[in-house]
Amino acid sequence: MSEIRQDQATKRWVIMATERAKRPHDLAVEQPPAGKQEEYSPTCPFCPGNEAKTPPELLAHRDRGGAPNSPGWQVRVVPNRFPALTPDGEVGIRDPLWFTNVAGVGAHEVIIESPMHNASPATMSLDQVTSVLVAAANRFDCLQRDRRLNYIAFFRNNGLAAGSSLVHPHTQVIATPITPTNIRLEIEEARRHYDDRMHCVYCEVIERERDAGARVVLETDALFVFEPFASRWPFETWIVPKQHASMLALGAPETVRPLAHALQATLGALFRALGDPAYNLVLHEAPLRDSCEDYWHWHIEILPRLSTAAGFELGTGIWINATLPEQAADFLRQFVQA
Amino acid sequence: MSEIRQDQATKRWVIMATERAKRPHDLAVEQPPAGKQEEYSPTCPFCPGNEAKTPPELLAHRDRGGAPNSPGWQVRVVPNRFPALTPDGEVGIRDPLWFTNVAGVGAHEVIIESPMHNASPATMSLDQVTSVLVAAANRFDCLQRDRRLNYIAFFRNNGLAAGSSLVHPHTQVIATPITPTNIRLEIEEARRHYDDRMHCVYCEVIERERDAGARVVLETDALFVFEPFASRWPFETWIVPKQHASMLALGAPETVRPLAHALQATLGALFRALGDPAYNLVLHEAPLRDSCEDYWHWHIEILPRLSTAAGFELGTGIWINATLPEQAADFLRQFVQA
Repeated sequence: MSEIRQDQATKRWVIMATERAKRPHDLAVEQPPAGKQEEYSPTCPFCPGNEAKTPPELLAHRDRGGAPNSPGWQVRVVPNRFPALTPDGEVGIRDPLWFTNVAGVGAHEVIIESPMHNASPATMSLDQVTSVLVAAANRFDCLQRDRRLNYIAFFRNNGLAAGSSLVHPHTQVIATPITPTNIRLEIEEARRHYDDRMHCVYCEVIERERDAGARVVLETDALFVFEPFASRWPFETWIVPKQHASMLALGAPETVRPLAHALQATLGALFRALGDPAYNLVLHEAPLRDSCEDYWHWHIEILPRLSTAAGFELGTGIWINATLPEQAADFLRQFVQA
Repeated sequence: MSEIRQDQATKRWVIMATERAKRPHDLAVEQPPAGKQEEYSPTCPFCPGNEAKTPPELLAHRDRGGAPNSPGWQVRVVPNRFPALTPDGEVGIRDPLWFTNVAGVGAHEVIIESPMHNASPATMSLDQVTSVLVAAANRFDCLQRDRRLNYIAFFRNNGLAAGSSLVHPHTQVIATPITPTNIRLEIEEARRHYDDRMHCVYCEVIERERDAGARVVLETDALFVFEPFASRWPFETWIVPKQHASMLALGAPETVRPLAHALQATLGALFRALGDPAYNLVLHEAPLRDSCEDYWHWHIEILPRLSTAAGFELGTGIWINATLPEQAADFLRQFVQA
């Protein structure tokens, strides 16, 4: 018989349908043959030499100098060529009583994570991952000063099944004038828990999961990595800071390198265990203008797209997962490198 | 510049990213060549003659009689062979303070909509669609008597991108002991609107959309079909009863045939306009044991899977849609048959 589990942080329900279970190693996709992707693609807008194919860069790391929008960078940030939101204009609000809409003011940027077309944060150097996070911190710092904006979403789509059309490794940034519904709901549940019990629910998640043990993937000095009890997707993996903080302070050097290490180790384990699976990685950050210091706890969710959300999931919000997180964690731990 | 729209019924925000817009006809997938799928597949568990490949039937329509689990049926209902939930046992609740979980008690059934392997509700006869709805009504009536259950979800996954692995036309039923989070949230917003304004928000949606006109696909005596103002997906289409009702009363003959007609007309228009697109169709029904008569309004949502929900959508709950619903409705109306 299957089991219906509830996530204590969000109150989401998930059906663990073990009747249709696949073993973890059955979920591994075909490992891309070495050399399948070249280091350089002449048609890729993110490859060095093709800088003119993107809008002018907002930022780049060039250790040995060089002109903007020319090769020689290690990390480069550009506006998205087909932006969902753009920086100019006033947000406004039209017809607030019915067909409510605001102007698409915001930002949509791309952090190109490496000059190498076939690189991946799962396999690149710790310095390179750190450099990506420093660029992200810089963009966050710049965007958060814009009083029109209320939220900055960082996310990484890997693979076609995760909605990524470009192979070249990149992270996206979308800054919105509205606070996202999901984040509001998560914060509301966290606040409710705090009001009931006087402590942060995510801090308690870490304690409970550490005690239980079966779903822990990795624990470093700064970060706790695990498969949530009510995982929606096979190999859903969360990276949560052990020190309570509502907002990721990427500007602080003591935060960046440990996070780069945990990210590299976690994505590396998924890469080796499952053969570069399609996934979405999303930072769950505090809104820019809401102080929720005591009860909200930033974290990263990695959602491998090894199954398809269908009518039941989209309609009810209840996910069906055929892979137990205990089995996923057990399998994944074998691929974590010391 | 794009536009951020809010759905008044659910308060969901959607970014209409017209910068990356595709024209409606660009979304049409390759029309399957006539005869690509045969009428009968020897390996399909839902084809006549293969009745032993499914668990014993719960119900079948056999106009000319015949033994259970033998050919001769027009519509057949069976338990899912790999059920997410099963009927035996007590729901219980374990560890209610932390790793909360309940037994996977419920039902997971399949309504096989036709004996023909290559049939589709988009093209089958009105009698056949009606027969499917009558079977659904019968199962609803039976399942809702089970006091352990709190919700019955009817949904239809069409095509691989919508999570369907079987071609043979079928609808699924999952009955759950918990009330789905999404339905709870939608009802809560509807109640809030009712408390503020003393009328049902879905009734107002119909009035406002009829006045606006641009997003209407079809209006029959009983049903209103339109592309919502804040459509999350290209060609997202809602079918809403014009007469306020919190629960679909499929048992009433005067309800069934008009709904069969609206379904056939809507799915037919999508089929002809877009070439049998992948979609999820979901009935949004009232919970079984909550009376929300005045403020909740049952409806059907059809979500074509013409784009992929990626990290931004899954993380924030804000969808990005590149196709304006006004354009989709304008295109779709050309394919509605009188």
